Amino acid sequence: GEAGKSDHEPAERSVDFPVSVVLPAGGTGERTGLQTPKQFCSFLGRPLISYTVQTFERLSWIQSIVVVVAKEHMDLMTDIIQRFQHRKVRVVPGGSTRHRSIWNGVLALGGEAEGEAAAGDRPKVVIIHDAVRPFVEEDFLYKITMAAKEQGAAGAIRPLVSTVIATTAEGYLDHSLERAKYRASEMPQGFTYDVIYQAYQRCTESDFEFGTECLHLALQYCGTNAKLIQGPPTLWKVTYKRDLAAAESIIKDALSQSACIITGGSAHAATLAGALQKAAGALDTELEVIPDLMGENASYLLKEWNFIRVSVNCSCLSEVEALLGDLEAADRALLHPVVVIWVHLSCSGESSISGGKVEPDGLMELASAAKLHNILLYGIQLQQSKEIERWERSVLKVMEITSALIRERSPALVGQLLQA
Amino acid sequence: GEAGKSDHEPAERSVDFPVSVVLPAGGTGERTGLQTPKQFCSFLGRPLISYTVQTFERLSWIQSIVVVVAKEHMDLMTDIIQRFQHRKVRVVPGGSTRHRSIWNGVLALGGEAEGEAAAGDRPKVVIIHDAVRPFVEEDFLYKITMAAKEQGAAGAIRPLVSTVIATTAEGYLDHSLERAKYRASEMPQGFTYDVIYQAYQRCTESDFEFGTECLHLALQYCGTNAKLIQGPPTLWKVTYKRDLAAAESIIKDALSQSACIITGGSAHAATLAGALQKAAGALDTELEVIPDLMGENASYLLKEWNFIRVSVNCSCLSEVEALLGDLEAADRALLHPVVVIWVHLSCSGESSISGGKVEPDGLMELASAAKLHNILLYGIQLQQSKEIERWERSVLKVMEITSALIRERSPALVGQLLQA
Ligand SMILES: [Mg+2]
Ligand SMILES: [Mg+2]
Repeated sequence: GEAGKSDHEPAERSVDFPVSVVLPAGGTGERTGLQTPKQFCSFLGRPLISYTVQTFERLSWIQSIVVVVAKEHMDLMTDIIQRFQHRKVRVVPGGSTRHRSIWNGVLALGGEAEGEAAAGDRPKVVIIHDAVRPFVEEDFLYKITMAAKEQGAAGAIRPLVSTVIATTAEGYLDHSLERAKYRASEMPQGFTYDVIYQAYQRCTESDFEFGTECLHLALQYCGTNAKLIQGPPTLWKVTYKRDLAAAESIIKDALSQSACIITGGSAHAATLAGALQKAAGALDTELEVIPDLMGENASYLLKEWNFIRVSVNCSCLSEVEALLGDLEAADRALLHPVVVIWVHLSCSGESSISGGKVEPDGLMELASAAKLHNILLYGIQLQQSKEIERWERSVLKVMEITSALIRERSPALVGQLLQA
Repeated sequence: GEAGKSDHEPAERSVDFPVSVVLPAGGTGERTGLQTPKQFCSFLGRPLISYTVQTFERLSWIQSIVVVVAKEHMDLMTDIIQRFQHRKVRVVPGGSTRHRSIWNGVLALGGEAEGEAAAGDRPKVVIIHDAVRPFVEEDFLYKITMAAKEQGAAGAIRPLVSTVIATTAEGYLDHSLERAKYRASEMPQGFTYDVIYQAYQRCTESDFEFGTECLHLALQYCGTNAKLIQGPPTLWKVTYKRDLAAAESIIKDALSQSACIITGGSAHAATLAGALQKAAGALDTELEVIPDLMGENASYLLKEWNFIRVSVNCSCLSEVEALLGDLEAADRALLHPVVVIWVHLSCSGESSISGGKVEPDGLMELASAAKLHNILLYGIQLQQSKEIERWERSVLKVMEITSALIRERSPALVGQLLQA
C-alpha cells in the first residue's frame, strides 16, 4: 500500500458494514524545524496529507474520510482536495487539542451537524489515523477494522525501540522498565461508532485538555479493553525533518520499480530495447518491452509511471509527442509525476550532435510544455558501434542514466539531451 | 557536527583528561531489510561506520576509538580504516551479545591485551556510542563526558515519541504510562573507566546474556546513579531502511550548503558569476565568488565541497583540468565526493553546439578520469543574449541545474554537457 502501488491492489477485502476515517491533521509541525506543517509539506509536488487521504480513498470499503485541520488551513485543505480530485473527503475545523479535534471529526461522521435525519449514515466502525503516517497498508487497516468491530476498540502497537527509563526529580536514573512488558501505542486505531462516541460524551474537560490516547478513554469510560495488534514499521510517523527525506525516498522507490519500453514496432528499436532490458538486470528497475500502447497494452497508460520511447535513426520528436498526448489525455500524472525518456540511437558514422540531426531546442520546448502536465521528459542519445565492448558500455550507460533519471525525477533536468 | 561541517568547528573544548570511545558495530542489520548490516551501508561511496568514526576522530580531545565488530567483519573494517585514512581507530572482535562486545572494547582500552605496562594509558572517561548514530554533535559529547567524569556515569535521553502501554497476556490494553514520567534511553553514554570496568567485572553471566543497558549495570554494581541529559533529535539511530535515506539526505544537505565560483580573473566571467550569485538567492546554496585558488583563497581547497568554474568564450577545458589537478593534489575528495561544474558562456551568435566549439567528448573523458578520484564533473552551457528576459531565464536555469547537480551528486550524470 505505498505510493505507486495504488493500481496493483490484491483482491477486495469483504467488509459488509460501513467504515469511515477521521484524520486529525491540525499539527503545527514544530519538530520538523520547517515553516510548513508536515502534513502540508510536498513530495514530488503533492502534499503529504494527499498521500494519506489517497491511501484510504482507494479502498472500496472505506465510505468517507473526515480531515480535521486548524481553521487557518481550511482553505488550503479544500484546495488540495480539488486539485488532486479526492472524492470521499470532508474537511472540518479542529479544536484546541488533539482530543477536541478528533471529537469534531467523530461528530461530523455522525451527521450531528446535519441533524437527526443523517443519523442513518453513521459508520459502524471509525478508524482514527494520523495524517502524517501515509504508508499504512490495507491489510493492516482491515485487521484493525475487524478487531474494532468485534472488541469495540483496537489499536496498533510496535515494540519499543529504546529502553524506557524513569528519572528522579533531579535528573538521575531511577530505574529502567523491563522492555518486553511494554509496547509503543501507534496509529491507526479503530472503534465502533458507539464506543468512541460515548467515550467522548462521558469524558471530562481535563481529558479533552490533557489526554492524547483514545484507547485510554475507551477503557475508562466504556470499559472497553482495546485489542492490540502489532503493526509493520511502515506505520511510522513523519515527525522530524529527516522523516520528510525518508518519506520522499519511499515514494520514489515505489515509483521507480518498473518502466515500459516502447519500440514503435521497429525491429531495430526492439533489438536496442532487448539490450537495454539485459543491461537493466543489474539495476533495480524492471523493464517491459512493448511495441505501442494499443489494445491490451493501453493498460500501461493506467499503471506505469515511467516510459522509455526508443527511436532509431529518426530524429523527429513526433513519436514522443504522441506518447505525451496519450499520457495527458489519460490524466496519468495527476497523483505522481510521470517520467518519459526518449532514447535516440543514431546509426550513421558521424556524431548526431555535430551532424545536427537531433534538435535539442525541440526537445526542450516539448519538455517545458509536458512539465505543465506533471510529465518529466528527458532525452538520451547513443551511437551505434560495431565494437562490441564500446556498444555494451553505451547501452549500460543508457541504463545508468535512465535509472538515475527515473529515481530522482528532477524537474531541473527536463529537456536535456544526455549522451551515452 | 554533521557530514560536511568538519572544517567549521567552533573553538576547542578544554578537556584535560584522556577520553576514549567504544563503538559497538556488531549488528546484523535485520531491521533494515537489507543484505548489508547498516553500519556498512554506503552513503555517497562511504560506509556509515566511517562517518561515525570521523565524527569522533576530528575532535582533538578524543584519544582513541575502539570499533567492536563481528569476527567476519574484521577484515572489512580494517579495509575501511585504511581506505579512509582513519588514524585513531583500533578494531577488536565482538562477543556474542551487546554487553560482551562492549566489554571487549573496554578491555582493549585498558591495555589488558598488552599487559600491565599499558595501564598508564587508560582513559579517564569512556564514551560508549552506537556505530549507527553518525550525527552526534561535539557539544553534546562534551556534556556527556564532563557529566561522566563528575558523576561516574551519564547518558542521553529523549522524550518518548509514542504513548507507552502495558499489555495483558492476551494482547489487550492493560494500562498506559504517564508519558511525562518516563524517557527513552539513547546513546551516547559516558562512564569513568573505573565505573564501567567494575560494572562489567561484577555483573553476572545473565547480565551479559540478556541485558542491554550499561546505565543499569553501573547502578546495580557500582551504586552509580547516572546523570541523564536530554539530547537533540540528531542522536537518532539508523534502524530501518527508510533511515538510510534520511541519513543520506542529511549528508547531502550538509554538502550542498555552499559553492565556490571561480572566475579566472576575467571581468566577463565575474559579471556572469555575479548574475549567478543573484539568481542563487532564491535557492538554498550560498555562493562565494573568487578569481582563483591562490593565496588566501587556497583555503577553499580545504573546506569547499562544490566548485563552479565559469569560462566565457573559451571552449578549452584546460582551466577545469587545472582545478581538478589542484583538488586531486589536496586529496580533497577522500571523505566526500566533490562536485565541479564547468559553466561555459558562449557570446557568439551561433549555438556553440552546432558551432562545434565545445568538445563534449573531451568533457566526458575528463569526467571519467576525475570520477576515479571521487570528483564529479558536469558541464552547463549557456548563450549570451541581449534580450534581458531571456538572459535572466538562462541564468536562473544554470542555477537550477547547478543546485540539482550539487544536491544529488549523481555519478550517472558526470561528463554531461547540459543546456541552460
Ligand atoms: Mg489517540
Ligand atoms: Mg547500553
